[in-house]
Amino acid sequence: VTARELGIRPLAGLAEVREGDQLGRLVAGVASPAADEIVVLSQKVVSKSEGRLRKLADVRPGERAIELAASMGKDPALIELILSESREVVRAERDVLITETNQGRVCANAGIDSSNLDAGWVALLPLDADASARRIRAEIAGASGSSPAVIVADSFGRAWRLGQTDIAIGCAGIAPIDDWRGRRDQRGRELAATAIAVADEIAAAADLSRSKDSGVPGAVVAGLGHLVNADDGPGAQALRRPVADDLFR
Amino acid sequence: VTARELGIRPLAGLAEVREGDQLGRLVAGVASPAADEIVVLSQKVVSKSEGRLRKLADVRPGERAIELAASMGKDPALIELILSESREVVRAERDVLITETNQGRVCANAGIDSSNLDAGWVALLPLDADASARRIRAEIAGASGSSPAVIVADSFGRAWRLGQTDIAIGCAGIAPIDDWRGRRDQRGRELAATAIAVADEIAAAADLSRSKDSGVPGAVVAGLGHLVNADDGPGAQALRRPVADDLFR
Repeated sequence: VTARELGIRPLAGLAEVREGDQLGRLVAGVASPAADEIVVLSQKVVSKSEGRLRKLADVRPGERAIELAASMGKDPALIELILSESREVVRAERDVLITETNQGRVCANAGIDSSNLDAGWVALLPLDADASARRIRAEIAGASGSSPAVIVADSFGRAWRLGQTDIAIGCAGIAPIDDWRGRRDQRGRELAATAIAVADEIAAAADLSRSKDSGVPGAVVAGLGHLVNADDGPGAQALRRPVADDLFR
Repeated sequence: VTARELGIRPLAGLAEVREGDQLGRLVAGVASPAADEIVVLSQKVVSKSEGRLRKLADVRPGERAIELAASMGKDPALIELILSESREVVRAERDVLITETNQGRVCANAGIDSSNLDAGWVALLPLDADASARRIRAEIAGASGSSPAVIVADSFGRAWRLGQTDIAIGCAGIAPIDDWRGRRDQRGRELAATAIAVADEIAAAADLSRSKDSGVPGAVVAGLGHLVNADDGPGAQALRRPVADDLFR
């Protein structure tokens, strides 16, 4: 297959998700994704189902969080959560706090945000978004008999560029990188440096089908069956650039 | 509109593009994009139509290029082209050369690559990809009477993450950032930091519909008519993070 038509439909009709809900069963109920389709779910809805919401008033900020919060003009409770979810601070300048999370992802605020939640509450990232994707995939299979690939998506800011795009923070049933290195181009020449982060591109594509105020927690992508595998695969952690190869730390 | 179905169809059937070809007319001939659709074209095909191919054997590397090429194990002619297309070297470590191009974009190798070209040839980026997008849009309108939005896409490596995703290096008829800051979420709370780089997400989505060896130079995206404007708008240069706000230079 060298060119294909894609369809992306929003995951509408999902009821409000609560801790302990089997998200995969709920998805199968409203969307009936086929075995060659890809289900993309927002980090927020996955975090809700996994009980990863926190009330800021319940957080006791430590000394480091209080200091950092004062220098950045932020809520000490939020900073405490960000630090406790992180193993390294990469940048803390002006109002930007970029860390490496305990799961090894470099991003702003350890991925913690408050949009579309009750006042005073924030959502932490899933503890292991690849495990989340595998579990949701298994739940969809259990409910429907078909095993679409599953991607957990979150918005991501970029060095050098304004605005966020959605990326894959977890996945199952899809190799997150489509590696063309060593393969040949149309002229038969070896491709030198083409490794496409398809899981990130799919997360971005799915994001276009919903608005930030819609309450729609994801989408189903059709037309990429060649990327869907029976094996769960390495997960989105394979998209992390090893620290030793990272020129921007 | 809060959720919408998207369709992406590859731009198949385009003849080999040569310098001076009116790319917009060729696109209108094979795809008939509607006024509420978005045409995504690869940088490579735009560069071809604009005569931005260079033969490495014709390039006379200067002293700096020869030194840098030796230390990086690269072709001095290629390095000379990269330097002449750039106004600043951001990183030159191991085999990675990241520069700010003369147009103000930070990327590897000044966006120069050789895939899907005759041996010994490389393609430079368009001199002004926003101007390219505006021109192509006008050509489509001239040929078909409808003015879809146009995006010029190129692959882009990311700090911290492996693999490339396509982004928008030029656009016309679409605001590249969908800015939700100050707007309200589902709970009526103000959204603090949600500015979505929709042009980049659309470029990424379109990339999924074609393979790197397909010769398919782009795609048409349907279902995002709410993002298409009569005005050409600020172009993809609005996606560049100002140097003063950049923590990773």
